Amino acid sequence: MYRSHNCGELRASHINTEVTLSGWVQKSRDKGFIVWVDLRDRYGITQLIFDDERTEKSVMDLAQNLGREFVIQITGTVIERTSKNPNIPTGDIEILVSELTVLNSSKTPPFTIEDETDGGEDIRMKYRYLDIRRNPVKNSLIFRHKVTQEVRNFLSKEGFIEVETPYLIKSTPEGARDFVVPSRMNEGQFYALPQSPQTFKQLLMIGGMDKYFQIVKCFRDEDLRADRQPEFTQIDCEMAFVEQEDILNAFEGLTRHLLKEVNGVEIKEFPRMLYDDAMRLYGNDKPDIRFGMEFGELNDVAQHKDFGVFNSAELVVGIAVPGGNSYTRKDIDKLIDWVKRPQVGALGMVYSRCNDDGSYKSSVDKFYDQDDLAKWANVTGAKAGDLVCILSGDTNKVRAQLSALRMELAERLGLRNPKEFAPLWVIDFPLLELDEETGHYHAMHHPFTSPKSGQLELLKTNPGDVKANAYDLVLNGNEIGGGSIRIHDKDIQATMLKHLGFSEEDAKAQFGFLMDAFEYGAPPHGGLAFGLDRLVAILDGQETIRDYIAFPKNNSGRDIMIDAPAPIDDEQLEELSLKLNLKS
Amino acid sequence: MYRSHNCGELRASHINTEVTLSGWVQKSRDKGFIVWVDLRDRYGITQLIFDDERTEKSVMDLAQNLGREFVIQITGTVIERTSKNPNIPTGDIEILVSELTVLNSSKTPPFTIEDETDGGEDIRMKYRYLDIRRNPVKNSLIFRHKVTQEVRNFLSKEGFIEVETPYLIKSTPEGARDFVVPSRMNEGQFYALPQSPQTFKQLLMIGGMDKYFQIVKCFRDEDLRADRQPEFTQIDCEMAFVEQEDILNAFEGLTRHLLKEVNGVEIKEFPRMLYDDAMRLYGNDKPDIRFGMEFGELNDVAQHKDFGVFNSAELVVGIAVPGGNSYTRKDIDKLIDWVKRPQVGALGMVYSRCNDDGSYKSSVDKFYDQDDLAKWANVTGAKAGDLVCILSGDTNKVRAQLSALRMELAERLGLRNPKEFAPLWVIDFPLLELDEETGHYHAMHHPFTSPKSGQLELLKTNPGDVKANAYDLVLNGNEIGGGSIRIHDKDIQATMLKHLGFSEEDAKAQFGFLMDAFEYGAPPHGGLAFGLDRLVAILDGQETIRDYIAFPKNNSGRDIMIDAPAPIDDEQLEELSLKLNLKS
Repeated sequence: MYRSHNCGELRASHINTEVTLSGWVQKSRDKGFIVWVDLRDRYGITQLIFDDERTEKSVMDLAQNLGREFVIQITGTVIERTSKNPNIPTGDIEILVSELTVLNSSKTPPFTIEDETDGGEDIRMKYRYLDIRRNPVKNSLIFRHKVTQEVRNFLSKEGFIEVETPYLIKSTPEGARDFVVPSRMNEGQFYALPQSPQTFKQLLMIGGMDKYFQIVKCFRDEDLRADRQPEFTQIDCEMAFVEQEDILNAFEGLTRHLLKEVNGVEIKEFPRMLYDDAMRLYGNDKPDIRFGMEFGELNDVAQHKDFGVFNSAELVVGIAVPGGNSYTRKDIDKLIDWVKRPQVGALGMVYSRCNDDGSYKSSVDKFYDQDDLAKWANVTGAKAGDLVCILSGDTNKVRAQLSALRMELAERLGLRNPKEFAPLWVIDFPLLELDEETGHYHAMHHPFTSPKSGQLELLKTNPGDVKANAYDLVLNGNEIGGGSIRIHDKDIQATMLKHLGFSEEDAKAQFGFLMDAFEYGAPPHGGLAFGLDRLVAILDGQETIRDYIAFPKNNSGRDIMIDAPAPIDDEQLEELSLKLNLKS
Repeated sequence: MYRSHNCGELRASHINTEVTLSGWVQKSRDKGFIVWVDLRDRYGITQLIFDDERTEKSVMDLAQNLGREFVIQITGTVIERTSKNPNIPTGDIEILVSELTVLNSSKTPPFTIEDETDGGEDIRMKYRYLDIRRNPVKNSLIFRHKVTQEVRNFLSKEGFIEVETPYLIKSTPEGARDFVVPSRMNEGQFYALPQSPQTFKQLLMIGGMDKYFQIVKCFRDEDLRADRQPEFTQIDCEMAFVEQEDILNAFEGLTRHLLKEVNGVEIKEFPRMLYDDAMRLYGNDKPDIRFGMEFGELNDVAQHKDFGVFNSAELVVGIAVPGGNSYTRKDIDKLIDWVKRPQVGALGMVYSRCNDDGSYKSSVDKFYDQDDLAKWANVTGAKAGDLVCILSGDTNKVRAQLSALRMELAERLGLRNPKEFAPLWVIDFPLLELDEETGHYHAMHHPFTSPKSGQLELLKTNPGDVKANAYDLVLNGNEIGGGSIRIHDKDIQATMLKHLGFSEEDAKAQFGFLMDAFEYGAPPHGGLAFGLDRLVAILDGQETIRDYIAFPKNNSGRDIMIDAPAPIDDEQLEELSLKLNLKS
């Protein structure tokens, strides 16, 4: 038996008990005649004491030669500490050690195993097993476990069945970003790894398994943006015999449960917002509604004068920055520089100060009078002491720019409190999205999403106007889940694929099995998927996902700890009937 | 709202309630003036009634045109049935339908959606979504969900943390059977899909996460034997600061919990048996101990006469078949033919009848007298009325042959009761196994398994004799789990890899990251993994796993429903820097 207790559980009530502990040497202090060692395991830290008077010499010698991260086992007696440490739960006691065994030694770790480490991202990733010993990473993984357990408990209690769908599936045409897996037994053929279990969960609905979920890895071979991973985890869900309202209610329930069990926060209301309203009021389909600063559209009150910049713009739109009139001219110039950064891309920014005396002072006083500026304040909801910031240009671009500014200012103003949770359903997404490069429409959610009732005809004339039974769950400005009511009729699915540019042959080759299944009594169904990595991070008040993944990959898709991917043997290639065809 | 109730919940207490149900038409009986429809969903079957007197004509017409597996929604009133059906929970009531909507029609399904279907294996797999509508498959998937929920609840309560390890890892040399995944972003390089998360769970132990589990997909690209799948699911577990005894106790606890919660069976004792004893007494490292028929080794009492067959054999070994003396000469001849089948491979079988009067009659009376035969009965534990069956030959082969015979006879005698559960730990497995073809030793469990204390030196002189800290959990003659205490010392691991034939470079290239990790304070650790697919089947009293997998692959590794694997586009190959290199 390696331990009678762990390093986090001993208290004053254990004094005089003989205990055995195992763990890692966090640090040791050697005063010559006395040695203290902080012993660490997953559960905490316990102080060990060795001294000339009470410790055998051989044990003392051993204690004096312990290095950081040595693995040791000790037996000793719990005693009261002379100087207690109120900062740790075991701070009232220490262990007077009688036996000490070194279970394993350790080289000096390449970074400190402390909450605030001196290790950079790369070295921490290379030695991820050491990084996991640090509380922030360890606790993130434990937090993730707690979330997934709560998800499973809630959904199971609600009658959902977790069904494992296959990982070795078929490449699909959206499959440009599929990872493929050559089959040795089927020469020249490939499986694909799923980007999501979408078609399988629909087949389960057709199979009568009317409430399905799965916490499942998904794969996407795309050029990685920061904070994306080639493999990621979804809470994938689907229900049959449901309308959109049933699904929103079911997963509002799940989210409410998580916020309560994991965060101790009771959320009464999940507001719902039309996609069009989200774009109009926040310039964003995943608005953070923990704070206001809603957009005011100013075309009517800003395009009647001789200011060409506004007059030529499709949209003139502003926000009121609370207390922003306190900004100096220099502050505002910096803000203008900020919106002109290529990542934001605005050409400039007009502003209007709302003075305490009810007067206004704008950067365009040459063109607009006090009445105009009063209207701007009114439309953006600005009060005395605020600053109105105004951007103009093409609607889509200017909304995105002002949304970025809104988020940045909220961050600076401390309005994005990670302990506050504001969920929001954004509903009635457009069915299709125009790819500006190719001029083609593609499915905004996916090709299986159903258009709003009665809008199928619009597909021919105004495809961009068709709205879908599609919804996103937004939490604190992050999309944490999204889904839709699916098409369950073969003809409608065929029409949809035609509009998405699939030839009849392609549609059959890729989705034939699903379309065939629709002919054997497919029930109405729909669902959604949560991005687990992000959900967990946000519930824990963080925005980066990497510490919530035990062994993440870097931005080139590499695991630098195990050095993968890597070349394989010629023999293995031969067996797979493949040859390399290197470009470089 | 598609339904107010499901098709399994209405009872006499609901009579006179108006309800809305949705589901599939299981069958309909049309008497002209009256139509009954059995409406089915995941939860059961409810009878609907339409008749000339009480049903509107338009609804009646619709009802008369419903086909099997049409999806319908009805509203109606719960009424008492005239002729009740005590075989189904809803058998006291039926629904007098007032509204009927056809949600989707169905082509005639290719096989009947009944507990006993007329569909063969292939057609059922092609239309798996229809197969899942059948109770046996549906209930198997729900049973699997229940088992995994209980596993997670038990282990979480015991302080285990479920950690997701990566799916895109590195190919290893045992990796001959790895599935590989070309990386687009890292030209000419490949990930591999894990055959198990072995190294990652060891790294988690080094990372201090001292109780880990994961229910996880694993992959092996091997020629498929019946009932093997290229992707399969493990309950993967690991613990740090443990000895073998701690692990056996922990997972005995899990198995006991499952048997209690899932099967309602209380198991007190998990016997432990040495590997050597299992081989000696049952000829098998996973003995079914629900029944006796232990082997009796007969060399001492059968090699003293002139019977050359026995005298030249390495092992003469027999079992007593309870009541076997009732077999006719023809029965016994058939049994001899059975052991001579190539799948078993014995050259013949000697037998001795134990007559009720205490005398014996054997097939080798020419060589052996009554005293000899009495000794054989004694050694095999045969009583009057039994039959002693004896095989002889090379130890390993003859044990396997007699084990096959023992299992076959137990099956015929009804001794393998699927409702009875007899778990067993088999411990002290050999560390190495001789590959008869190559003459090389390889790791019986895996290269990370630790030899028994003090046996490292034996590796050089008698490698086949070294025993490992390795154990299997056996349930009813099936290995349901296996594991070991791992090596946690770099030097011992290096020695082990050397003995397994790895060059220093290969060892470094393949396991360098693990060996490096051992140098930073690796704690003693060990674990095990359960094969979930099989575990679930056995707990449910079945021996084939296919119905416990929602979308299984066939023996060629194909999913015939979605027709995968399949060729991919030249463009996609090009992007992956690959070319086909077909042999045929």
